[in-house]
Amino acid sequence: MRQPSFLIPDIREMLVPEKQKELQEALEEFHPVDIAEIVVGLEPEEQVSFFRLLAKDQQIAVFEELDQEEQSALLSSLTKEHCRELLNDMSTDNRVDLLQDLPEEIAGRLLACLSESERKLTEKLLKYKPNTAGAIMTTELAGVRGHMTAEQSLQLIRDTALLKETIYYLYVTDDQNHLTGILSLRDLVVAKPEQLIQDVASPYVISVTVDQDQEEVAKVMEKYDFIAVPVVDEEGKLQGIITIDDVVDVMKKESTEDIHKMAAIMPHEEEYLEVSPWAMVQKRIGWLVVFLLLEMVTGSVLRNYQTTIDSVIMLAFFIPLLIGTGGNAGTQSATLIIRGLATGELKPNRIFKIIWKEGFVGFVLGLALGCLAGLRTYWMSGDLLIAGAVSCAMVATLVMATVTGSLFPILLYRLKLDPAVAAGPFIASVVDVTALLIYFEIARAILHL
Amino acid sequence: MRQPSFLIPDIREMLVPEKQKELQEALEEFHPVDIAEIVVGLEPEEQVSFFRLLAKDQQIAVFEELDQEEQSALLSSLTKEHCRELLNDMSTDNRVDLLQDLPEEIAGRLLACLSESERKLTEKLLKYKPNTAGAIMTTELAGVRGHMTAEQSLQLIRDTALLKETIYYLYVTDDQNHLTGILSLRDLVVAKPEQLIQDVASPYVISVTVDQDQEEVAKVMEKYDFIAVPVVDEEGKLQGIITIDDVVDVMKKESTEDIHKMAAIMPHEEEYLEVSPWAMVQKRIGWLVVFLLLEMVTGSVLRNYQTTIDSVIMLAFFIPLLIGTGGNAGTQSATLIIRGLATGELKPNRIFKIIWKEGFVGFVLGLALGCLAGLRTYWMSGDLLIAGAVSCAMVATLVMATVTGSLFPILLYRLKLDPAVAAGPFIASVVDVTALLIYFEIARAILHL
Repeated sequence: MRQPSFLIPDIREMLVPEKQKELQEALEEFHPVDIAEIVVGLEPEEQVSFFRLLAKDQQIAVFEELDQEEQSALLSSLTKEHCRELLNDMSTDNRVDLLQDLPEEIAGRLLACLSESERKLTEKLLKYKPNTAGAIMTTELAGVRGHMTAEQSLQLIRDTALLKETIYYLYVTDDQNHLTGILSLRDLVVAKPEQLIQDVASPYVISVTVDQDQEEVAKVMEKYDFIAVPVVDEEGKLQGIITIDDVVDVMKKESTEDIHKMAAIMPHEEEYLEVSPWAMVQKRIGWLVVFLLLEMVTGSVLRNYQTTIDSVIMLAFFIPLLIGTGGNAGTQSATLIIRGLATGELKPNRIFKIIWKEGFVGFVLGLALGCLAGLRTYWMSGDLLIAGAVSCAMVATLVMATVTGSLFPILLYRLKLDPAVAAGPFIASVVDVTALLIYFEIARAILHL
Repeated sequence: MRQPSFLIPDIREMLVPEKQKELQEALEEFHPVDIAEIVVGLEPEEQVSFFRLLAKDQQIAVFEELDQEEQSALLSSLTKEHCRELLNDMSTDNRVDLLQDLPEEIAGRLLACLSESERKLTEKLLKYKPNTAGAIMTTELAGVRGHMTAEQSLQLIRDTALLKETIYYLYVTDDQNHLTGILSLRDLVVAKPEQLIQDVASPYVISVTVDQDQEEVAKVMEKYDFIAVPVVDEEGKLQGIITIDDVVDVMKKESTEDIHKMAAIMPHEEEYLEVSPWAMVQKRIGWLVVFLLLEMVTGSVLRNYQTTIDSVIMLAFFIPLLIGTGGNAGTQSATLIIRGLATGELKPNRIFKIIWKEGFVGFVLGLALGCLAGLRTYWMSGDLLIAGAVSCAMVATLVMATVTGSLFPILLYRLKLDPAVAAGPFIASVVDVTALLIYFEIARAILHL
């Protein structure tokens, strides 16, 4: 793979009028994604002169690959006429993404630049709630009527194809624009020229509705291995399509959100280095306070056992070992269950089987780790009874931690809450309190305190 | 969305000879993915009679949607002739997936069923290492030569299209099969019939090599928004293609693996309920033992401060609160950095900026949580000095935890090790030891012990 960012010093040198032609020719062989990487690496004043060098088609393709902030920065440096051209020619879904993120005033000014038809369309799309199918769909699709022949359809595509985002699938509609069938471009190419579309197309179309969440759309596309899915309104009228590349981005974003949630971080849209430290504190403090309040219970538990600790102070030395290991095992269980529920691999109706399995695994892990911890305790304390108490507490703690770690996410799922909340940090806090109770009760019984 | 599994009782009733025709007609409108769901829900003996009802094309499409275990179970119940037909007609990448997972003896027997050309091809593909581009690619692709015209190419596609997995892109090769260009089916359809392929195609093709890891392939496809990518050997000869649907599965699997790794669980291929408890113990015990050994250090640290604890036993009560909160904040930092590095959003050369930001966020979080913890301590102990010690220790612990949580993953990344190892459980164990040292040193200084 070429690393386009390595080329930036060379490109910088070529940004002089006499080298312009040479640079333009060199850029022809680049993918828009790579050119966009170069644009991002240049200084703002260089960006404009570099961008102007690109061919018209390339400008639009490259502009669409930039992220929203880079797009609006670039727009502010271009002439008004140039902005108008770019905005009018970019695909509707990318245009909506851009305008959604801009302050209302600037978005309004840019909207005013658009041709009337594009403006009306964009305004309509901007009305859909963010993260719904309507908000991420594009309206550039290849639609044909059922009563057309294969040849007429191919001609229609030849005449309009360059404007359409994807024509790998053709969507068949009736005269009221109701979605009635689907065929792939492949089906059309292999059909006999005189065949009617309605005879070649499949009438069984799987579609999503404009108000469906983008995560559901991703699930549908993944399940059926679609590269595009049609979007209809509540009356079944074709409104747009969503292509796989937009959904891959959704999947990646949702994955990151899930992972962050499991570490008790609230979702955020911006990249890490773009989030201000204060905003970052806000995303993280909420759950930390909740867990702190939970952990405060440990203080009361320990005060309860003050006389026990007073008589055998050695017992206090193994507290971090026990609660830390319990937290780690509980984190493993919670993570397995939360991810299993998220991918649909685990069904919550197998609750007893899951809990039973986790408890058993916890017991076996507890036996192994309990032996190790017992040896360590005996080595440090020289007291078999204390070693025995730590070993037994380790077994009981690990069973408790694995059962808690698997039970909580399933309960939350059943209550239609997000199971990811019950991930590592939450389980660790719950386990801390319970493990201390287990430990001191076992110690008191074994040491007769 | 229809829920095909709800239909199973109805379908079961229709599995009688007199209702066969009706059932067959009803099934025509189902997507193979949905029929596969029904197959999985039926009893083994019903599966065979149900499967036989399907049209030939549907059988193959449905068979390809089943997972490897279901495929081999079904194969073992079908007649030898039926197996032969299915195996010969399924796409090569799915066939390789199936044979790779079967015991060598059964795989060998099935291989022998194949026609000679299919067998040779399959044997060649089976030689690629698992999880490489070669192992997941399909050899069914639409290849054209540069000196053909658009019309000749379209005719070639019409003649062979039904056999090809995807013809959304056409790959142009020279007479030695070197990949020399690419055009989309859309480009071909809109080209003039007499135009030469080499004049319409783009000579700038982005490809992957047979031995590249599937995760890299996924990254390339995601970056360029491809729906298919060509695979070449070391000489640049076209060997196959990888389609987006296979890569979406790879992305999902890799995501799950990343999440599991971050919870200190070793990767496993099977679904949760299919992993035996003993295998599950093996996947989880390794890191638990490592963290246990780390946590054992806490015992020595605490013994070191035995006289301090002896004189103010109250100090021991706040140990879980401090180390637990430190672990939670460290988990947040580690998760943000690990995920950022994995998605490419964070560049490790920004190390100082990242550490500085995390340290600052840790300081602010520490101030807020330190106040709360101080209040709690004062309420429990009635001693301002102890409350002050806990508050100060909380601030210092959170700075240490956030810096450690961000530093370790970056260091591992720079050492070309997997940053995910340094996730929550690891950081929590490291933080436990350090937090105890911080806490008791601060307490000794403030309380003059």
